[in-house]
Amino acid sequence: MSEGDPTRAEREIEQLGQRAKAAARWLALAPSGQKDEALRAAAEALVRSTDVVLEANAADVTSARERSLRESLIDRLALSPERIRAMAQALVDITTLRDPVGVVRAGRRLPNGLDLQQVTVPIGVIGMIYESRPNVTVDAIGLCLKSGNAVILRSGSDAIRSCTALVDALRPAIESTGLPADVAQIVRSTDRASATALMRCNRYLDLLVPRGGAGLIQTVVEQSTVPVIETGVGNCHTFVDASADVDMAVRIAVNAKTQRPGVCNAMETLLVHSAIAEAFLPRVVREMTLRQCEVRGCGRTRAIAGEAVLPATEEDWATEYLDLILAVRVVDSLDEAIDHITQYGTRHSEAIVTEDFGNAERFLRSVDAAAVYVNASTRFTDGGEFGMGAEVGISTQKLHARGPFGIDELVSTKFVVRGQGQVRG
Amino acid sequence: MSEGDPTRAEREIEQLGQRAKAAARWLALAPSGQKDEALRAAAEALVRSTDVVLEANAADVTSARERSLRESLIDRLALSPERIRAMAQALVDITTLRDPVGVVRAGRRLPNGLDLQQVTVPIGVIGMIYESRPNVTVDAIGLCLKSGNAVILRSGSDAIRSCTALVDALRPAIESTGLPADVAQIVRSTDRASATALMRCNRYLDLLVPRGGAGLIQTVVEQSTVPVIETGVGNCHTFVDASADVDMAVRIAVNAKTQRPGVCNAMETLLVHSAIAEAFLPRVVREMTLRQCEVRGCGRTRAIAGEAVLPATEEDWATEYLDLILAVRVVDSLDEAIDHITQYGTRHSEAIVTEDFGNAERFLRSVDAAAVYVNASTRFTDGGEFGMGAEVGISTQKLHARGPFGIDELVSTKFVVRGQGQVRG
Repeated sequence: MSEGDPTRAEREIEQLGQRAKAAARWLALAPSGQKDEALRAAAEALVRSTDVVLEANAADVTSARERSLRESLIDRLALSPERIRAMAQALVDITTLRDPVGVVRAGRRLPNGLDLQQVTVPIGVIGMIYESRPNVTVDAIGLCLKSGNAVILRSGSDAIRSCTALVDALRPAIESTGLPADVAQIVRSTDRASATALMRCNRYLDLLVPRGGAGLIQTVVEQSTVPVIETGVGNCHTFVDASADVDMAVRIAVNAKTQRPGVCNAMETLLVHSAIAEAFLPRVVREMTLRQCEVRGCGRTRAIAGEAVLPATEEDWATEYLDLILAVRVVDSLDEAIDHITQYGTRHSEAIVTEDFGNAERFLRSVDAAAVYVNASTRFTDGGEFGMGAEVGISTQKLHARGPFGIDELVSTKFVVRGQGQVRG
Repeated sequence: MSEGDPTRAEREIEQLGQRAKAAARWLALAPSGQKDEALRAAAEALVRSTDVVLEANAADVTSARERSLRESLIDRLALSPERIRAMAQALVDITTLRDPVGVVRAGRRLPNGLDLQQVTVPIGVIGMIYESRPNVTVDAIGLCLKSGNAVILRSGSDAIRSCTALVDALRPAIESTGLPADVAQIVRSTDRASATALMRCNRYLDLLVPRGGAGLIQTVVEQSTVPVIETGVGNCHTFVDASADVDMAVRIAVNAKTQRPGVCNAMETLLVHSAIAEAFLPRVVREMTLRQCEVRGCGRTRAIAGEAVLPATEEDWATEYLDLILAVRVVDSLDEAIDHITQYGTRHSEAIVTEDFGNAERFLRSVDAAAVYVNASTRFTDGGEFGMGAEVGISTQKLHARGPFGIDELVSTKFVVRGQGQVRG
């Protein structure tokens, strides 16, 4: 907290924090059965509240249109009875996951007879800062509840009515199963001060997870004194090695770029070994163009693939387009490709297409990223695809969780030691 | 980095960071054999450099005495040929630890045929900020080297000559085994600006570990934008339950308080159930007093144990004495003890002495701390005692590492995915 009198925002966050901490203490001791019951009750309450939620959402959408929000953002914001049912189903799906609390990660009897165990425990109170996606509200409540954590949600102003309606629908249902409603709370004010106060509320918050665009994440990383798990920015590459199977390389590149261009695991830059450029580039450019994907290439790319390719600038190598735009660069070696990725990549997902064993293994070892691939699309970096169940996000930092992470990463550990009077000599 | 022209300190840190990053890329690929060879070479070089190091240390000690540094700090600062040999031995001991890099933590074949593995990798570049203990320099270099991380050391001004001499002794030895010397660097300037620049050097640093007093740790937590693992502050409690074995309780309390009072896992406050207070308090106070330990108690403690006990104030409950001073409070229940620990504890190490199974288990579950004990001294919270080998520190935060942590926690993970052309449908 800043010095002097607390601001209104600080007071609000302080109160939410206090209540969350008390609720978290309680929730940490709740057995899985009770948590799953609360999740099912929440899912039912959500469906029952469809009309109220849609009404709040309609107000958000109207206001977003008035402020000429981009259509893609309005699509993320807008709810429907189907989307609400899908959110409820996501809560029920979480009940099928194994409780991540109380898992003995390691244990042994020490030479002095002490029984030592490292046991998973909830983290405590988790803050989530996000933008205009109401479904994050319900996901976050479900994942935090199952992992025994109280959550404080701070939605962007675009979605605040929808998110508040969702939280208001879920809280009584959670309480009806005997758990404190304060395991799920939302910050009502959406001004910058409330975000700042949340980011500095070390007294009550154990973790802050930002979910949203690069700007939001950067702000949180720079300003938060609460520990953060950074999620999301992906400037991902695919390197087509000299020995690549050209058919496979085209298929992987097209999938990585165009299957869903707006997400963080989509490819942004294609690196092509000069020895295969003549065989590969004209084909891949044609396929991209057919799919309305703009291609921007280096001089050598343009010399081979012709006028369909616009000139790329230095800025293109550093850009996460999240759009149907692809940057292409011809390189002369695996090392040059790795150097490019090291310089411009965001350590999210990186792929090589190759038939050469040595190059494949060298790429896997040398490239520093949350996920590294041989002969597959970067689009697989996803909690669901990796078989972990619902994901909280994709961490691009190195501490605590890296890559897709779910409820198994929403825990900490404690050392539990049982003795018979041992003292240290 | 702050806006505008970089300061001299920022430029120094930027250069160290750049070199560390390059060295880390190289070191990440070094096999265990090479790293162990470098550790042995460093140990030998350290012993050979005894005279040079002692000379630098003598200058630090003289300057510390001139500034009237506390004698306990001077003891931590002062080196001897034996202490240097011990530091060298610590490097050799690290070669016996298993390489934490390249461990497959999990792996499976996905339904689409992709082979997915979660493999440990070095974190990258680690910053260590510490005070006047030269041995931290050598420990940190050894632990970081074995775990494949480059380290940037930033010692306090009290120890800077000693620490610089140590780094200068080790670097050529490391280089002689084919690894880059820049895996170990020290910040030459000890002004506040260099610490600030290090704490904000997100571009090159992946992790910052502060080792020192509460003030240093608080500053780093508040100011660092680089991810931090908080270490150290321990306001630890022992609760003597109504059913405790009095002999055992006395033995544990005396050990936890007096065996080494200046360390973070020593007990600071003793909580005593009122039902056992008459039998237990006079004995434990006598034992503490015999060992020159000052006892400060609540009113009920003083009523039972008499004039040997000074009155405790609210401030005593919140104080980490790190000295031969003990606070004592009588409580009426396990819940009251847990509430006290929740309010005043720093989540480091907490113990109950009891013969009651239910109370033991409730204490272990309900108390939120890095280590929780039944019928044992809190003094066991230590990497060596827990059988992990040399520790980097004792984390009192919840992310990434909690409790004693060593080289197994100085790693991150990456997902390694091997395919045969898979694309996402």
